[in-house]
Amino acid sequence: MITGKNYIGSRTSSLGSKIFKTFNPISNKENEQTFYEASTQEIKEAVDLAWEAFLYYQDFSGERKSEFLNAIADEIESLGDDLIDMYCAESGLPAGRAMGERGRTVFQLRSFAELIKKGDWVEAHIDTALPDRAPIPKPDIRKMMTALGPVVVFGASNFPLAYSTAGGDTAAALAAGCPVIVKSHPMHAGTGELVASAIIKAARKTGMPQGVFSNLNSSGIEVGVQLVQHPQVKAVGFTGSIRGGRALYDLAAKREEPIPVFAEMGSVNPVVFLPEALMKRGDSLAKTYAGSVTLGTGQFCTNPGLLFGIKGDALDQFISRLSEEIVLIEPGCMLHPNIIGNYEANKKKALSQPGLKLVTEYEQAIGHNVARQAVTTVEGTTFLQNPALHQEVFGPFTMVVQCKDKEQLEAIILKLEGQLTGTLIAEGNEVNTFSGVVDALRNRVGRIIFNGVPTGVEVCPSMVHGGPYPASTDSRFTAVGIDSIKRWVRPFSYQDWPNNLLPDALKNENPLGIIRLVNNQLSTEAL
Amino acid sequence: MITGKNYIGSRTSSLGSKIFKTFNPISNKENEQTFYEASTQEIKEAVDLAWEAFLYYQDFSGERKSEFLNAIADEIESLGDDLIDMYCAESGLPAGRAMGERGRTVFQLRSFAELIKKGDWVEAHIDTALPDRAPIPKPDIRKMMTALGPVVVFGASNFPLAYSTAGGDTAAALAAGCPVIVKSHPMHAGTGELVASAIIKAARKTGMPQGVFSNLNSSGIEVGVQLVQHPQVKAVGFTGSIRGGRALYDLAAKREEPIPVFAEMGSVNPVVFLPEALMKRGDSLAKTYAGSVTLGTGQFCTNPGLLFGIKGDALDQFISRLSEEIVLIEPGCMLHPNIIGNYEANKKKALSQPGLKLVTEYEQAIGHNVARQAVTTVEGTTFLQNPALHQEVFGPFTMVVQCKDKEQLEAIILKLEGQLTGTLIAEGNEVNTFSGVVDALRNRVGRIIFNGVPTGVEVCPSMVHGGPYPASTDSRFTAVGIDSIKRWVRPFSYQDWPNNLLPDALKNENPLGIIRLVNNQLSTEAL
Repeated sequence: MITGKNYIGSRTSSLGSKIFKTFNPISNKENEQTFYEASTQEIKEAVDLAWEAFLYYQDFSGERKSEFLNAIADEIESLGDDLIDMYCAESGLPAGRAMGERGRTVFQLRSFAELIKKGDWVEAHIDTALPDRAPIPKPDIRKMMTALGPVVVFGASNFPLAYSTAGGDTAAALAAGCPVIVKSHPMHAGTGELVASAIIKAARKTGMPQGVFSNLNSSGIEVGVQLVQHPQVKAVGFTGSIRGGRALYDLAAKREEPIPVFAEMGSVNPVVFLPEALMKRGDSLAKTYAGSVTLGTGQFCTNPGLLFGIKGDALDQFISRLSEEIVLIEPGCMLHPNIIGNYEANKKKALSQPGLKLVTEYEQAIGHNVARQAVTTVEGTTFLQNPALHQEVFGPFTMVVQCKDKEQLEAIILKLEGQLTGTLIAEGNEVNTFSGVVDALRNRVGRIIFNGVPTGVEVCPSMVHGGPYPASTDSRFTAVGIDSIKRWVRPFSYQDWPNNLLPDALKNENPLGIIRLVNNQLSTEAL
Repeated sequence: MITGKNYIGSRTSSLGSKIFKTFNPISNKENEQTFYEASTQEIKEAVDLAWEAFLYYQDFSGERKSEFLNAIADEIESLGDDLIDMYCAESGLPAGRAMGERGRTVFQLRSFAELIKKGDWVEAHIDTALPDRAPIPKPDIRKMMTALGPVVVFGASNFPLAYSTAGGDTAAALAAGCPVIVKSHPMHAGTGELVASAIIKAARKTGMPQGVFSNLNSSGIEVGVQLVQHPQVKAVGFTGSIRGGRALYDLAAKREEPIPVFAEMGSVNPVVFLPEALMKRGDSLAKTYAGSVTLGTGQFCTNPGLLFGIKGDALDQFISRLSEEIVLIEPGCMLHPNIIGNYEANKKKALSQPGLKLVTEYEQAIGHNVARQAVTTVEGTTFLQNPALHQEVFGPFTMVVQCKDKEQLEAIILKLEGQLTGTLIAEGNEVNTFSGVVDALRNRVGRIIFNGVPTGVEVCPSMVHGGPYPASTDSRFTAVGIDSIKRWVRPFSYQDWPNNLLPDALKNENPLGIIRLVNNQLSTEAL
């Protein structure tokens, strides 16, 4: 069933000479299938085809595009256990997680389908003419969102489905009217090919133009570099490391025509435990956070890597309970030998910093590629002075920063880099006492959580998954939820354009029945 | 009245040793006042103060911020003739234009004041909790737009009021909740100081924090470079040349924390004249376009620098009528000797290109710094092969490209760089015959105009002033109209946040009475 080839539109292709295999971290063996990395020629063909598709696809109705997205969801479901098996073999993640992520992927596709079928998202604005206005007449101007052009999506290592081939970036870009070229993640090229085949089937069934979607294999960085530099590529979506995301951002910024790169990158997701809450609920918080730190073997971008508290008995007690609880949890396999290799190296590097203490680490016998979860502590003063301690250790690792007092806590938060999330654990009136800390946290994150855990990113319109750099390269957008479509569109104005030539969203009759801003008033009426 | 000093918040300061004067292009003499370029110390003080102000100002209610913006408008009007006189002395533009531009500036400020007073613009989204959802409960998540931080605004040479000190960028940023530091344009530092004094007065009267606005003088690029590189500056607005805008974009992209730069840059604003329209209305079109090319001495970013037609008698006749009409217009003074120097140099450079013919140029005696308008022609094939001919000649200059046929016209449009505007001049059914040309144009511009002129940028919600690079550095935003506020904000989510601690826009009671997306339905109701 798996060919190992690239999809250039609906055509499979294997012109390149570079081949690679994926790896099963549980069996600790390479998987069987050979994949062909895309050649320069194949990259060019995929982008040229995407550009041709764009000229038609950008004007497809919301209805037609929604049929396509729903068909993709159907075809992914039709892949059945083949997809789940492949996902598990290429990630070491359990079947339950695979099914959950498939559900999320399908939900995202159907949410975007619903959004574009409704059609209001285009932000239709109409200002009608005032031909008699003095000193000069006012023209008729109408505005709506339009697609940017072909988008390149980089598959994420830690979400083989929900942030890869048909994941959030792809669904949002296709919904916007942008053809997508996926740079498949080398760790799960088979999962990628299966999902790509589902998209291609859906494209055929719903009459989409050739090139609306392509899937290119890669084992290293060359394919991605060439894609980002191609003049007909107009935007980039990425989920992964700061180093990777920044490299793509830099490449895109150096182009003759710079293009937007939305990279969702690293985050240590600070959690602030206020004293009264620790005193009253320290034990249950320790249990909850042992779970959150180790969830998915710590391979979530919202993993709580930094815990802050003010020194005292309650914090000491919390640290010791957290350490006890975390080693009760069965350690998990990481996605790939490279990932666990980085985990161990980064953990070691962190522990080599003066003042960082290892409080506990899972010590029993473990299988291949299984990560030993760890809890560390450090003094606030030491943390404040050493930026190396602020870096993410991707995996089931957390650091409890023991602050001297409220002032030091606030000073530390102010110095943190941008984060996806910030969490506040507090009792009733504590928030008012610590308002400086809360304000500082607010300016460093994209989402702030009260008495919860940062892991678990709800897919809904109110979600912001993004944040100040380096949480993302453009904090003005979210990577999750329907508003993530805004990353791939630009506003476009028609001035005095004849009604019959306008897109339906802007016609006098309002044939789509959408909500529009007409002369500064929201309305669904015809003009 | 003019001190020549910088405003660091409400404090005037002149620590630097570099001084300069502005120039009156009509009298061809320096103006009297000496200005002090901001020193590194003053730049640092202004940004530090802006950051402190940000921590308060970002949370001010729409009502309070709207009072500030309206007060700025009032204070600008109170400057009376002093402002108009200074404007004219520093720009060579006539008093009528000065008054028109003041009216536009005040209108922009009041429009943003109205927008933020209403408050709907924050895009409040609420998804309420589902505590019983399986397998995991759904949290309560609420989202709204929040300010990015201190914004640096670069004054534009060609709009001393509407795109400078209190122009569109400043008004939008202050409305969004971002303190503003203006890098005043050296050509109109006196106009800038007057407007800055009005803003400072308004800030005092309405109780705004120190540092919500600062105005820094500069004669060269150093002040701007230091501002863009300062870690506490979070976004940049610029209107000017491609070279200048790109340099700022590159600086911002190379920062440790890259920041968004919205630069509205050059554009040649292609106009396509279809054959039937030229046949029927060639003479009146020639007169209209003679006016549009020379409007404001060609110093508008929407100046029509490229006119396209298909070879034939009608186009020949149009060229000869345009040439006759354009020299009937009294030539105007340009903004500064540097600007006319560049105009003459770029015109000469263009005319040195093989195949570009000068059809007419104003030849009578002219005053100091007055620009001779010019009409040139070139064959489509020549234009297609020589990208040097695609460059903007800022001033009253236009080039008529004589295309062989429809196919060549389409091929040329496809090759154009990104543009602010594209204009189609057509009779009834011609548009269908030339649909390929129209589609090509649409993908190259931010605004498309039917049977009009590109000059004249209406300030209204439907306006897009921006477009694919190099028209702007980020086509996802407009520089004109209320939606330009979106350049300076980011979405922010609160998860399970206590109702009493939420901002008013997201509280259950909806105390602001704004329109919100509640569980995916628009509503003004309380929860």
